[in-house]
Amino acid sequence: MAVTYELIKEEKNTKARLGKLYTPHGVIETPIFMPVGTKATVKAMTPEELKDMQAQIILSNTYHLYLKPGHELIEEAGGLHKFMNWDRPILTDSGGFQVFSLGELREIKEEGVHFRSHIDGSKHFISPEKSIEIQNSLGSDIAMAFDECPPYPASREYVKKSLERTTRWAKRCQEAHKKPDTQAIFGIVQGGMYKDLREQSVKEITELDFPGYAVGGLSVGEPADIMYEVLDYTVPLLPKDKARYLMGVGTPDYLFEAVIRGIDMADCVLPTRIARNGTVITSRGKLVVKNAKYAKDFTPLDPECDCYACKNYTRAYVRHLFKANEILASRLTTTHNLYFLIKLMENIREAIKEDRLLEYREEFYKKYGYDL
Amino acid sequence: MAVTYELIKEEKNTKARLGKLYTPHGVIETPIFMPVGTKATVKAMTPEELKDMQAQIILSNTYHLYLKPGHELIEEAGGLHKFMNWDRPILTDSGGFQVFSLGELREIKEEGVHFRSHIDGSKHFISPEKSIEIQNSLGSDIAMAFDECPPYPASREYVKKSLERTTRWAKRCQEAHKKPDTQAIFGIVQGGMYKDLREQSVKEITELDFPGYAVGGLSVGEPADIMYEVLDYTVPLLPKDKARYLMGVGTPDYLFEAVIRGIDMADCVLPTRIARNGTVITSRGKLVVKNAKYAKDFTPLDPECDCYACKNYTRAYVRHLFKANEILASRLTTTHNLYFLIKLMENIREAIKEDRLLEYREEFYKKYGYDL
Repeated sequence: MAVTYELIKEEKNTKARLGKLYTPHGVIETPIFMPVGTKATVKAMTPEELKDMQAQIILSNTYHLYLKPGHELIEEAGGLHKFMNWDRPILTDSGGFQVFSLGELREIKEEGVHFRSHIDGSKHFISPEKSIEIQNSLGSDIAMAFDECPPYPASREYVKKSLERTTRWAKRCQEAHKKPDTQAIFGIVQGGMYKDLREQSVKEITELDFPGYAVGGLSVGEPADIMYEVLDYTVPLLPKDKARYLMGVGTPDYLFEAVIRGIDMADCVLPTRIARNGTVITSRGKLVVKNAKYAKDFTPLDPECDCYACKNYTRAYVRHLFKANEILASRLTTTHNLYFLIKLMENIREAIKEDRLLEYREEFYKKYGYDL
Repeated sequence: MAVTYELIKEEKNTKARLGKLYTPHGVIETPIFMPVGTKATVKAMTPEELKDMQAQIILSNTYHLYLKPGHELIEEAGGLHKFMNWDRPILTDSGGFQVFSLGELREIKEEGVHFRSHIDGSKHFISPEKSIEIQNSLGSDIAMAFDECPPYPASREYVKKSLERTTRWAKRCQEAHKKPDTQAIFGIVQGGMYKDLREQSVKEITELDFPGYAVGGLSVGEPADIMYEVLDYTVPLLPKDKARYLMGVGTPDYLFEAVIRGIDMADCVLPTRIARNGTVITSRGKLVVKNAKYAKDFTPLDPECDCYACKNYTRAYVRHLFKANEILASRLTTTHNLYFLIKLMENIREAIKEDRLLEYREEFYKKYGYDL
C-alpha cells in the first residue's frame, strides 16, 4: 500500500481526529490544509517558501497539466515532483470537477467525458482509465478516482444515477491503476444532499477498499449549514482507519467545521486567489489591503502573524505594490494567506491534542468576527 | 561627506579600476552592476533574494515614487530603505531622464520641467530643488543631480545650451540639499557626442566638487562605438578619487567596455525587463526560453550557472511557466539574469586584481558569441 493512515487520537468533545498519513514522499500530520498548485506551481511561490511555511503536501490539477504542458512531457521530465522541484507529497485531482465545470463544452457518457479545451477549443476525452493514466504519468503520491460531481441543486434521480456511475468509474480506476506500489487512489463518495444516497455511496465506495476517501459534491454552491449537515451524517460512515478528504474548502470557518466533523484533509484555491486580488485573511477577519484606508497604515497585514510578509512589510507598502502592479504584491499576500491557514491547522492539531478544539474555535471566531 | 570613493587598484592593461564606495548603508566593491527597483521593489524579487545573489546596491526612481505612492508617504514610512525593507545602499536617479522622455507631455524651462503624469495626465513641476527635496525624503544614500539629458542625435548648439543649464541646475541641487551628512549628490556630465563640449561639462561640473560623477547622455540610442568613443575621451578627465557612474547600461558587452574605460558603476532595467519577457542572458549568449524548441529541453537555463533557477529547474519547466502565465516564470528568469550580471562583475573585479581583464573578456566573448 503506497499510502496508509494512522489514527493517533480522537478529540473528546468533537469528531476531530489527529492522524498521520504515510506517503512515498513523507509523513503528513493531519488535519491538514493543502495549498493548490494547479499548473505545477503554487502561484507566486517557490517550493522552498512552501517548506518554510511548513506546507506538508500540495495539490495539483490533472485537467490543466493534461492540456499544458501535457502529462507525457512531465513523465519524460521524471514526473511532477522533479519537474516542479517539490520533493514532498503531491495529491492530484482526477480532472473530473474541471471537465464537468466546462458546461456546454462537455458531454458526460458512461464511457467518460467528451469535452473541448477551454484554451483552444480542441476536442478531448477523459475516462476513468485516462484520468488514472494521466495521474500515473504525473506520479503524484495520491491520485483521485474519476467521479461525477453533480451540481447543486440536483434532483434525487439525477444524483442517484450519478453516484452509481461514480461507483462503476471508481472500479474502473482501480483496474486501470498501473502504480499501486508508489501511488494511492482515494475513492470519492457522492450522493448530493440526500442522506440515504450518501449512505448508498459510502457503502458502495468503501466496499472497493481505497486507502482514503473524499467527501465529494460539497462546496459546490450549497449553503454552509447544508454542507455541515451532509458532513454530520456522512463522515461517521467512513472507516476510521482511512484518511478523509473534503475537497474545495479553505476558509477558516469551513476548516474548523470540517475538522470538527472528522475531516483530515482539505484544499482550496481561495487563499491564493484572493491574495492575488489584494485580500488577506487575518486573525481579525478578511482585509482588502488595496483599499485607500490602508494607504498610510504602517502596521503589518496581521499584527498577530509572524510570517515573512508580516514581519517585514506594512499594509501601506503592500498596498503600494498592488497599485503599482508589482509582482511582489502577490508574493507577499500569498505568503501570508497560506502561512495563516497552515498555522491555523497546526493550532487546530494542538487543540485536538489537548481536547480543547471547541474553546480554540470560540477564541478564534471571537477575534475573527464570525458568529456561529 | 556621506559617500567617499577609495581607489584600490588600477588595472595594468586597461583603464579599469578596483575600488570601494563607502556609504551610510555599507561599503560597495566596484566596479558594480546595480539592479533597478523602479517603484520601490526590484520587480519579482525580495530584498533577501537580492542579498543572496550578492547585490550590494540597488537603484530606485524619483519620478515614479514621486507620482506613486508619493515621497511624503515614503518619508512618513521612515524613508525608502525602511518602506521597502532594504538595508543596503540605494541610489536614486533625479527623475530628469523620465520627465524628458515624456515627449509632448513636458516643457523644459530654466526653472525646471513642467509635465503631465503618464498615469493620469495631472500637471506637475520638477525643478532641481524639487528633485532634491524628493530624494531627501526618500533618503537614498546617493542622490543624482537633476540634469538635462539631450536626445541623440542633437545639434551642437542644443547640446551646448543644455550642458550649461545642467551646470546651473547642478549648483541649485547642491544649494537645495538638506541632508549632506547622510546622503551624497553625484554630479552628471553632459555634452552629447561632442568632445569639446564633454570637456567643458567635465570642467564645470567637477569644479562643483561632487563626491561622484555620472557620465550622462549615453545609452540614448547612439551606436555602441560612439558611446565607447565618448567614454574614451571623457572618463580620463574625471578625478581619480571619485566614483564614476554610467547610467542605463546592463548588457555584458557594454559592462565590459565601460569598465575597461574606467567606469565603476552601472545600472539598467534590461536584465529584469527581458527576464519577464522570457529572455535570459547566458554564458552562451541570449536565450529566449519561451521558444518551442525548449519544450522538452531538460537542461538548466545556463548549464554553467549556479543560481537558484539554474540549480533547480529546467528550460522545459520555465517555458511551461511562461506559457501558463505563472508568476514563478518571471521570478526564475529575473533571478538568473541579475545573478548572471552580478557574478560577471565579481569576475571582472577578480580579473582586474590579477591584471587579466582583457583575457577574461576574450574568454567570455568567445563563449558568449560576441565579436569585438
